[in-house]
Amino acid sequence: MMTKDTTTAVLLLSCRDQKGLVAGTSDFIYRNDGNIVHADQHVDAEAGLFLQRVEWELTGFRIPRAELIDAFRPIAEKFGMQWELHFSDYLPRLAIFVSKLEHCLHDLLLRQRMGEFQAEISLVISNHPDLQQLVETFGPQYHHYPITKETKAEQEKKQIELLEEERIDLIVLARYMQIIGGDFVKRFRNRIINIHHSFLPAFPGGRPYHQAHERGVKIIGATSHYATEELDQGPIIEQDVARVSHRDSVQDLIMKGRDLEKVVLARAVSLHVTHRVLVYGNKTVVFD
Amino acid sequence: MMTKDTTTAVLLLSCRDQKGLVAGTSDFIYRNDGNIVHADQHVDAEAGLFLQRVEWELTGFRIPRAELIDAFRPIAEKFGMQWELHFSDYLPRLAIFVSKLEHCLHDLLLRQRMGEFQAEISLVISNHPDLQQLVETFGPQYHHYPITKETKAEQEKKQIELLEEERIDLIVLARYMQIIGGDFVKRFRNRIINIHHSFLPAFPGGRPYHQAHERGVKIIGATSHYATEELDQGPIIEQDVARVSHRDSVQDLIMKGRDLEKVVLARAVSLHVTHRVLVYGNKTVVFD
Amino acid sequence: MMTKDTTTAVLLLSCRDQKGLVAGTSDFIYRNDGNIVHADQHVDAEAGLFLQRVEWELTGFRIPRAELIDAFRPIAEKFGMQWELHFSDYLPRLAIFVSKLEHCLHDLLLRQRMGEFQAEISLVISNHPDLQQLVETFGPQYHHYPITKETKAEQEKKQIELLEEERIDLIVLARYMQIIGGDFVKRFRNRIINIHHSFLPAFPGGRPYHQAHERGVKIIGATSHYATEELDQGPIIEQDVARVSHRDSVQDLIMKGRDLEKVVLARAVSLHVTHRVLVYGNKTVVFD
Amino acid sequence: MMTKDTTTAVLLLSCRDQKGLVAGTSDFIYRNDGNIVHADQHVDAEAGLFLQRVEWELTGFRIPRAELIDAFRPIAEKFGMQWELHFSDYLPRLAIFVSKLEHCLHDLLLRQRMGEFQAEISLVISNHPDLQQLVETFGPQYHHYPITKETKAEQEKKQIELLEEERIDLIVLARYMQIIGGDFVKRFRNRIINIHHSFLPAFPGGRPYHQAHERGVKIIGATSHYATEELDQGPIIEQDVARVSHRDSVQDLIMKGRDLEKVVLARAVSLHVTHRVLVYGNKTVVFD
Repeated sequence: MMTKDTTTAVLLLSCRDQKGLVAGTSDFIYRNDGNIVHADQHVDAEAGLFLQRVEWELTGFRIPRAELIDAFRPIAEKFGMQWELHFSDYLPRLAIFVSKLEHCLHDLLLRQRMGEFQAEISLVISNHPDLQQLVETFGPQYHHYPITKETKAEQEKKQIELLEEERIDLIVLARYMQIIGGDFVKRFRNRIINIHHSFLPAFPGGRPYHQAHERGVKIIGATSHYATEELDQGPIIEQDVARVSHRDSVQDLIMKGRDLEKVVLARAVSLHVTHRVLVYGNKTVVFD
Repeated sequence: MMTKDTTTAVLLLSCRDQKGLVAGTSDFIYRNDGNIVHADQHVDAEAGLFLQRVEWELTGFRIPRAELIDAFRPIAEKFGMQWELHFSDYLPRLAIFVSKLEHCLHDLLLRQRMGEFQAEISLVISNHPDLQQLVETFGPQYHHYPITKETKAEQEKKQIELLEEERIDLIVLARYMQIIGGDFVKRFRNRIINIHHSFLPAFPGGRPYHQAHERGVKIIGATSHYATEELDQGPIIEQDVARVSHRDSVQDLIMKGRDLEKVVLARAVSLHVTHRVLVYGNKTVVFD
Repeated sequence: MMTKDTTTAVLLLSCRDQKGLVAGTSDFIYRNDGNIVHADQHVDAEAGLFLQRVEWELTGFRIPRAELIDAFRPIAEKFGMQWELHFSDYLPRLAIFVSKLEHCLHDLLLRQRMGEFQAEISLVISNHPDLQQLVETFGPQYHHYPITKETKAEQEKKQIELLEEERIDLIVLARYMQIIGGDFVKRFRNRIINIHHSFLPAFPGGRPYHQAHERGVKIIGATSHYATEELDQGPIIEQDVARVSHRDSVQDLIMKGRDLEKVVLARAVSLHVTHRVLVYGNKTVVFD
Repeated sequence: MMTKDTTTAVLLLSCRDQKGLVAGTSDFIYRNDGNIVHADQHVDAEAGLFLQRVEWELTGFRIPRAELIDAFRPIAEKFGMQWELHFSDYLPRLAIFVSKLEHCLHDLLLRQRMGEFQAEISLVISNHPDLQQLVETFGPQYHHYPITKETKAEQEKKQIELLEEERIDLIVLARYMQIIGGDFVKRFRNRIINIHHSFLPAFPGGRPYHQAHERGVKIIGATSHYATEELDQGPIIEQDVARVSHRDSVQDLIMKGRDLEKVVLARAVSLHVTHRVLVYGNKTVVFD
């Protein structure tokens, strides 16, 4: 990972695998006096797919930032690329969704304050009022949307309005104990990161630590993934695990699991906001 | 773990949790001048179950080995214990089942030769002839039982006869590509260890590395467990995991997985033959 | 780990290895109607040393709590034991020492609030004023002792007075950037836990992440240990590690290391306050 | 990792960081109709160094293999590159050095037979005769060079002659219990891989498991590195670790360590023979 002070541009792209792709983008950057600071690509041979991340310094780059999209478009069209362009000096705006469990939220707030994330936590949304004071100590606004079966659809609509009004780039479900509706998921496709407290695909759904204890596994895990319409089935971004034994009660698993949840969610958020994750099919490529 | 030269006795027991259990066994050993070298117990509070492993030196112990079972029986009956008694100078007799993949078999043979196991590999059974020469270089007999849908029941009957004739204590399925029949499993309840090449309960059944690749997990695993009538559902003894990424093809997962399979199976065998595993319900207690 | 509601007593003892030790304590508890909920022992064969932790429920135990020490003393004297007796309903009183880096402190405060520790964080001592507000939000008092080379001895004396006045049981150096004096260490022998940000004995002393980066290691670590007169040489309680690569700058190591420091320190504190750590020689036995 | 059937060329290069490097090589390949299947680079900002690995398919590539070096030279000279060119259909020739401990040797032989390495194990050199039969079962020649203080220099000279005569590309010290002389090391700079049985830089030199046991660490490790004139100080290629506890005797550490040694050495060899390791200063860049 780079920790340069200069602003960089990041291209994330994918297209059908074909000759000249690496040369195409690197030559475009070189001809315009850009200095590449990170470049990584992946070819999925089965799918015939090429995926790339390339990052270069804007200092001395001959194409003005405002004209960059138009300048690159011909190359993108030539190869039939799907692509995104990001600038490192834009801080992605995050909305964190939380219920009552504070450990993931607290961890994200703290990391942000310590400068670990290149992002801004713009607001926190909760179906409970409990964590308002904590959040406001750290700075972000706290929005309380109580949710019942009856009000859910309507409240989600309001949430979406708020998220769009606030130009939120990424939604982080930090142990948010509500299932997000299909419309909501569609609207923010690949922009909602969830933390599930098991090593998926083992133990999806409710009470995974109870399931793990019941099954007698010797290792537990946590999984961060993009939310999709199917619960706990989205593209996996990051996973980690911890050893347990017969001595661990469900309560012990919950405690040990918290440490996993925190780091696995934080890593996913950090990878996303530095534009290191590309989704294809139901998988991710992580350019770390 | 102890590496004493003296012979020891090991009691493995379980019963309803009640007062005086620890005192009952330790006092029995102490009154007879035994020196305890390992003692560990576990209480499953929900199940109201007490499980214990206690190991003591026979040197200077006042009860002759031949009378030990009778001497302990009154205590066992008083508390309603299920119990086993083992002596460290008896080497459990192992039968390894294998098909064509040699890595787990080879690993077990090598560990046994290097003195890692307190066990004897008495024989190897295979549905293929391929590994005969390898096995015989190491010493054990090689028994070839070709299996088709038609001959399976009959061949298993013959296998069971051989296993009983050879007084086999533990059967190790070292990537044996046949499903063991229900009668076979019943006959050797908690004495058949299988290695499954996934992090169970994720990816049971066939081609787990293909399943893992398809799902896009970031960590793969292996699981050793006692075989039961339900495929890949038995009590888990040991698990381990390894990181993978989008760069790993199915073939890479298979290669990385082999290293997991070897150690996870070897650890399970080693724990079993030193009488450190107690099964209860569908779980294990591992006194390591 | 047990999560009973009833109060328990914990005996931590060590003595010369000899027959009858397990029976001696378990029989004492049993005769007095105690129910053992955890018992573990270790024999260091080379050192000829026996070490034990035994925990039993006080409900129904026939010896009143106030008489327990006197009641056990004859057994302890018979075997020549060094021993400690603890009750689970007494919450050990912690003092956390910190400088400017907040991550370990914050983590401990948060865990305590979430009920992970069976302990009370009574006060925080710092050589800087920066973290006062944070600490007071969580509850503990904040004591600021600025330290210069000239004032160090005097300030430490005041700190010791405060710690004794407040009957502090355990001192936690949560990235405290001062070396504690020899007298201080002696006064709180085996009651000062430090977190060092390397995998000891690699990279002791200053700037271990810089050292690790310079050396090009592929794994970094953190170590919690009891402070002794020799810097970073005390008995190790817990360690953990994380993978790094050539892509990680020193700054990346520092960020990844923080996550290790937090969990490695928290585990050590948790083990200590549940009386699971016994020091002998320059090592620990951890009865987990 | 790629598992293509077609032959590929691999360029490993390093030079002063400057603009146009990525474009320079990728354009060279593209203009000549090459299809890049892997490309990765690293910039060490402090050292001002650019390091790259690029691999492309030769099928359809317009420059004949025999002319490739001359064709690329102008680019290399323009940027002042240090560079190597490899072809995937050349199997590097390995010599394994071993003493009496067979586990690493056996593991490498087995992996090679199972097709895990893109390399040939040409010969095994030992200062003892013990493992001759094992080695010959697998195929390679076994050369026995007994070594005493008096004969060491002379025997090493003979070994070097043999290695050169056999055109050995990589020497693997698989628990070889002799210190290789300075001349030997110089002759095969960055082509001798050693496995050290500790988590370097902790516990260099002799008996690291005894040192680890004495120090009471909670984690042990193994390290593969290129041999240099200074013992156990060379550039680290790979490391891995395993948990241990007070229950583990030195003998247990040795057994657990063996599993680490095997995989850590095998990974280093595999990385080297696929041209994924670049040494700079006393560190490595591993393009995995």
